[in-house]
Amino acid sequence: MAKATPRKKKTSAVSAVKKKKTQSRSRKQPRDTSERIGDLARQIASHASKGRDPFLDIPTRALSNVAFSPRKGIIEMGGNAQRRSFFNLSQARKFMQTTLVASGASELIKQGKTTSIRDLFYHCKHTIKGTKENTFDDQSESDPIIEDLEVAINSMREELGLFAEPKGAMVGPMVLVDQGDTIDLAHMGSGGYAIPSIVEAEIIQFKKCDAKFVLLIEKGAVWRRFNEDRFWQKHKCLIIHGGGQPPRGVRRLLWRLHNEQGLPVLVLVDNDPWGYYIYSVVKQGSINLAFESQRMAVPKAKFVGMSSFDAERFNLPSEVTIKVTEQDIRRAKEIMNYPWFANKKHWQKEIRHMLKQGVKLELEALSAKDFSFITETYLPAKLASKDWLD
Amino acid sequence: MAKATPRKKKTSAVSAVKKKKTQSRSRKQPRDTSERIGDLARQIASHASKGRDPFLDIPTRALSNVAFSPRKGIIEMGGNAQRRSFFNLSQARKFMQTTLVASGASELIKQGKTTSIRDLFYHCKHTIKGTKENTFDDQSESDPIIEDLEVAINSMREELGLFAEPKGAMVGPMVLVDQGDTIDLAHMGSGGYAIPSIVEAEIIQFKKCDAKFVLLIEKGAVWRRFNEDRFWQKHKCLIIHGGGQPPRGVRRLLWRLHNEQGLPVLVLVDNDPWGYYIYSVVKQGSINLAFESQRMAVPKAKFVGMSSFDAERFNLPSEVTIKVTEQDIRRAKEIMNYPWFANKKHWQKEIRHMLKQGVKLELEALSAKDFSFITETYLPAKLASKDWLD
Repeated sequence: MAKATPRKKKTSAVSAVKKKKTQSRSRKQPRDTSERIGDLARQIASHASKGRDPFLDIPTRALSNVAFSPRKGIIEMGGNAQRRSFFNLSQARKFMQTTLVASGASELIKQGKTTSIRDLFYHCKHTIKGTKENTFDDQSESDPIIEDLEVAINSMREELGLFAEPKGAMVGPMVLVDQGDTIDLAHMGSGGYAIPSIVEAEIIQFKKCDAKFVLLIEKGAVWRRFNEDRFWQKHKCLIIHGGGQPPRGVRRLLWRLHNEQGLPVLVLVDNDPWGYYIYSVVKQGSINLAFESQRMAVPKAKFVGMSSFDAERFNLPSEVTIKVTEQDIRRAKEIMNYPWFANKKHWQKEIRHMLKQGVKLELEALSAKDFSFITETYLPAKLASKDWLD
Repeated sequence: MAKATPRKKKTSAVSAVKKKKTQSRSRKQPRDTSERIGDLARQIASHASKGRDPFLDIPTRALSNVAFSPRKGIIEMGGNAQRRSFFNLSQARKFMQTTLVASGASELIKQGKTTSIRDLFYHCKHTIKGTKENTFDDQSESDPIIEDLEVAINSMREELGLFAEPKGAMVGPMVLVDQGDTIDLAHMGSGGYAIPSIVEAEIIQFKKCDAKFVLLIEKGAVWRRFNEDRFWQKHKCLIIHGGGQPPRGVRRLLWRLHNEQGLPVLVLVDNDPWGYYIYSVVKQGSINLAFESQRMAVPKAKFVGMSSFDAERFNLPSEVTIKVTEQDIRRAKEIMNYPWFANKKHWQKEIRHMLKQGVKLELEALSAKDFSFITETYLPAKLASKDWLD
């Protein structure tokens, strides 16, 4: 799995937004997404029929409009918005695209269907009659418009019926209903239940839950070890993996399990900057999707490992450590300065120790002791002593 | 998903191996993998105790030892092997590594466990007593040794208890048993059954099957459309995706469904060189894993789309086509020259038409007609007229 470090542009300036005032984006009454698209359309039509310039107000999705709320523990969008007018040469194209995407989403909802963001792009792409102009030339044009629409009507793309490539699996002592099918997650064999991209309550309902917590594991291959050793049965938990950086479906599912079922979320990742970053996104949300933190971030999530102190604590041979690269060092320092890590002494100690040792550690390194060391010794010891970082 | 074109090195010289004599690697009696590792160990011990130089014979995994069998329709390994001796300075390290990996695999089998190839690397990595020499420095050293062991004892890595990252999902009218859990693939909701990395008969048994064929879909997002529209119910088939190029678990599962359940396999991919290549690997096997074609390749698999003639046939708007790149053209020509395509007129016509039109087509392009055009019109028309390529 490629461990791409997120683009510097998006992360390096984070600390600058630390103290910005956040908009109180309190959840609206749960109104129908379709109705909200209708409101948008009626507003445009009303302006047009009165001979006025139709416009849309789109909340600004940029670093300048993002802030960390220490009280809520999540990254949030600020209150700035940009007006997008039809009779403005530089905005007319985007205005047209926004209404097209809204119309496509509305069609989807009416048909009771879901589709991929790529599908929607093709669905909305056509040549405008009598011209040689395409509505969209590339998916890179339609994806940001989808995000615009999400913030404009305060609906997640999943509520618009849109999704990206699915990833991740889950097992554990829980029964859920997925589109009418009852699924017992304690009887899913070695493969597990494939987590869909859309896990909203209309599609997935939780039925019976005997789990005491959720364990998010970074990698599918490590998850398999936990499943094979039936860790979830011994420790009464749900085990989930998201195939690296968890996709939106997995994050939203964590949110729902945490908020609706009251399950604590523990995160188990490699000890490297990428692992820290995965934890950070699960906990506080990400900067470029700040508008969705409220419905995805789990600010009480705990980091259960691997810690940079684990090599000594569990007496791992030095051969299984990996030397950090220049890029690792740079990323680690950036992460140390994230506002949500900067004020936490234990996190400063954790990351400083990694830098001092000059090595990183993968979950698989524990196999140097024994194949099941991770499930039989390592994690049980951590759980027993509540040895995790907040 | 990254659509990396496979390295040229591996593919461009394929036609050169067209006529090479293939070794008759008839399947041995299904003897226990553990026993075969034991044989290997006993042979080494016996040489050592007689004061002779211990050695291993490793079948050569290289283009020079690979050939396409037109009769069987798969890519096969030839009969060349290389001797790896302990008392040979340039071979001693690899000899040591091979025995270590064999010992690790043997331990796994004895413990009744499976693990990832990365895990095994860590498990086997240590500093040799009294020296500063590591048994392995990097996973790039242990992975090829695993392949060596696979061919040396004629066992797939899955039989050695080893796997890579899992990927892919499946639903349809079938009941299977996965590690004792009965799983009804017709009641898996929107997520589906996550296909594990190891699908051998010891882990997965097929129980009841009402499916008439298997449909392999390139992308998870398109698979979701087929699942949502319950295509598998109307057309009595299993629908599977492998998240792009299907991983070994998915390929092996296709093989088992085809050979044990007698189900025809249809492949639905994008119309581009990458899609052709995915089909090619499912059908004939891949060059660098030629030794596993026998247990993974499905030479009777059919290519059901997308075809370069589909844009005209289904009257798709020209805006949804994508211009081919220089790299696409080069890859398409390489694929045309694969021995298994070179003699097939319909395949030459198919690829030549793509090159002539100068465009490629994604499955999602069909959404320009309607979100469910692919499940309600496109594929049913193809199935009704048996419009597929062999």
